Amino acid sequence: MPRENTKVVPSASRAAENRPARQRFECAMPLRWSDQDVNGHINNARIVTLMEEARILWLNQTAAAEGLDSFRCPKVVASLNVEYFRPVSYGRELIMLLDVSRVGSGSFTVRYAAFQSDAPVFSGSTVLVPLDAASNAPRKLSAAENAYLLPYLAAEAS
Amino acid sequence: MPRENTKVVPSASRAAENRPARQRFECAMPLRWSDQDVNGHINNARIVTLMEEARILWLNQTAAAEGLDSFRCPKVVASLNVEYFRPVSYGRELIMLLDVSRVGSGSFTVRYAAFQSDAPVFSGSTVLVPLDAASNAPRKLSAAENAYLLPYLAAEAS
Amino acid sequence: MPRENTKVVPSASRAAENRPARQRFECAMPLRWSDQDVNGHINNARIVTLMEEARILWLNQTAAAEGLDSFRCPKVVASLNVEYFRPVSYGRELIMLLDVSRVGSGSFTVRYAAFQSDAPVFSGSTVLVPLDAASNAPRKLSAAENAYLLPYLAAEAS
Amino acid sequence: MPRENTKVVPSASRAAENRPARQRFECAMPLRWSDQDVNGHINNARIVTLMEEARILWLNQTAAAEGLDSFRCPKVVASLNVEYFRPVSYGRELIMLLDVSRVGSGSFTVRYAAFQSDAPVFSGSTVLVPLDAASNAPRKLSAAENAYLLPYLAAEAS
Repeated sequence: MPRENTKVVPSASRAAENRPARQRFECAMPLRWSDQDVNGHINNARIVTLMEEARILWLNQTAAAEGLDSFRCPKVVASLNVEYFRPVSYGRELIMLLDVSRVGSGSFTVRYAAFQSDAPVFSGSTVLVPLDAASNAPRKLSAAENAYLLPYLAAEAS
Repeated sequence: MPRENTKVVPSASRAAENRPARQRFECAMPLRWSDQDVNGHINNARIVTLMEEARILWLNQTAAAEGLDSFRCPKVVASLNVEYFRPVSYGRELIMLLDVSRVGSGSFTVRYAAFQSDAPVFSGSTVLVPLDAASNAPRKLSAAENAYLLPYLAAEAS
Repeated sequence: MPRENTKVVPSASRAAENRPARQRFECAMPLRWSDQDVNGHINNARIVTLMEEARILWLNQTAAAEGLDSFRCPKVVASLNVEYFRPVSYGRELIMLLDVSRVGSGSFTVRYAAFQSDAPVFSGSTVLVPLDAASNAPRKLSAAENAYLLPYLAAEAS
Repeated sequence: MPRENTKVVPSASRAAENRPARQRFECAMPLRWSDQDVNGHINNARIVTLMEEARILWLNQTAAAEGLDSFRCPKVVASLNVEYFRPVSYGRELIMLLDVSRVGSGSFTVRYAAFQSDAPVFSGSTVLVPLDAASNAPRKLSAAENAYLLPYLAAEAS
């Protein structure tokens, strides 16, 4: 965050203006009664299914509707992290926000933040490796995929 | 692994002899055809369910059979990490090994390692917070629980 | 179905006019990518979960919003029947219509009809036995519950 | 069960001797903690998954090990029926017995009976339609498939 006496370099300023505003994919994720476990809250493993569903709504459906359908290829989840803050309750709207924290040559990291009644309930990340549809082998991200993900790249330090 | 010319310090050697052998809870985890997703492998979120089931077989059933039933209390999963190495296939035995990497005053961390045909397929960890059965509030680990977990504590550096 | 020479008794006619139009609970049921099995369609057992979710949206949520919350008690499923007509596909809207085919003193039968792209995909029924919340024993339907279900009672023969 | 004074008709006796002993596929089905719903019992929809798993253990694995692997083809579930007798509890062994009640030219009906502590907990049936692996169209049962199923055909009336 620029402090009062920060001297912004003009060209950088212009670049920031030209860069599309930082985006996040947002969805209200429907819960099911059966997502609850015997303890009466949405089960911690089922939350990983909700993360998967939000990611698919974004990359397999929304991106495809926006003209990029190559993310519909199979994608391997290479790594998963979830921090659980509060119990998730059935019967209350669950809002999920997704963006990316890293775009590599052959993988990228999707970040998830979830809220009920405006309170954060969990956050997490998954490292995804897209596969070549024919060979099922890991492949590089295309230029179009890179361009699609860029506006969603969280720039923590800026 | 001690090399031929390793000189073992006697006192350390004796301490190691006195310390209970390092234990791991081991189980063969039954898979279900429906654990597979449309890509033909065990789904990454379902793997979290398998971790949950192995943990419950250990702490809610085996520990109880060994005389410690206080772990049957509800336990919150505060944090989850999984590294996926290879696809997990239905129809092949899945061996899981569990131990602990940390025992705190009010939480502990269970580690998981899973193998098919002797090859590692995934590993992970969960931070668990036991709750008081009456108040549902986080509680401290009891002395009996600490004593139970100690032999399972991985001592990487020793 | 009245035949040509049927003479409709005026009072009966008036009763039919006064009777609330036959109702069905309708919802669009969100599907999840993970509802698919390895054969690429929504799994047949998962369809039973969708029936459960539609029933809960109706009896535990909609009925409660309309002032009747006694159906939120635990309910045992005593019997289940499903006829599968066509594969259910992820990515297409699934419309479900629910009504009742029988209201007994201590149980009732919910019927389900489901459609994708206007084509029937499955239908089914479940016999439900409401339990007393305190004793967990089967209980009789209350007068309010009977009155709530009556407009949803399919009158095939009338 | 023949009582002491039962007089067995010789010809019937001989027919029974020649007929292969009536078989049932039996398995102990592992349950998972997460199969329980918020009411504390194995969920009624999950029981359909257990029926599916038992059927696959029989027809896709046991039959294949016995030399008949054509049942590994995709099979459509055309119809499902379940009668729930008692709650199924996690932590107690669930025994399932499967046989067939009907073998048609292009479909057959598998029957399921399940027990905990020797008490029947649910029973059910599924109509299965095998598909041609190449065309994905319904196909006729082969002579080998008919021969495999015959000893499992329940002969209620005999």
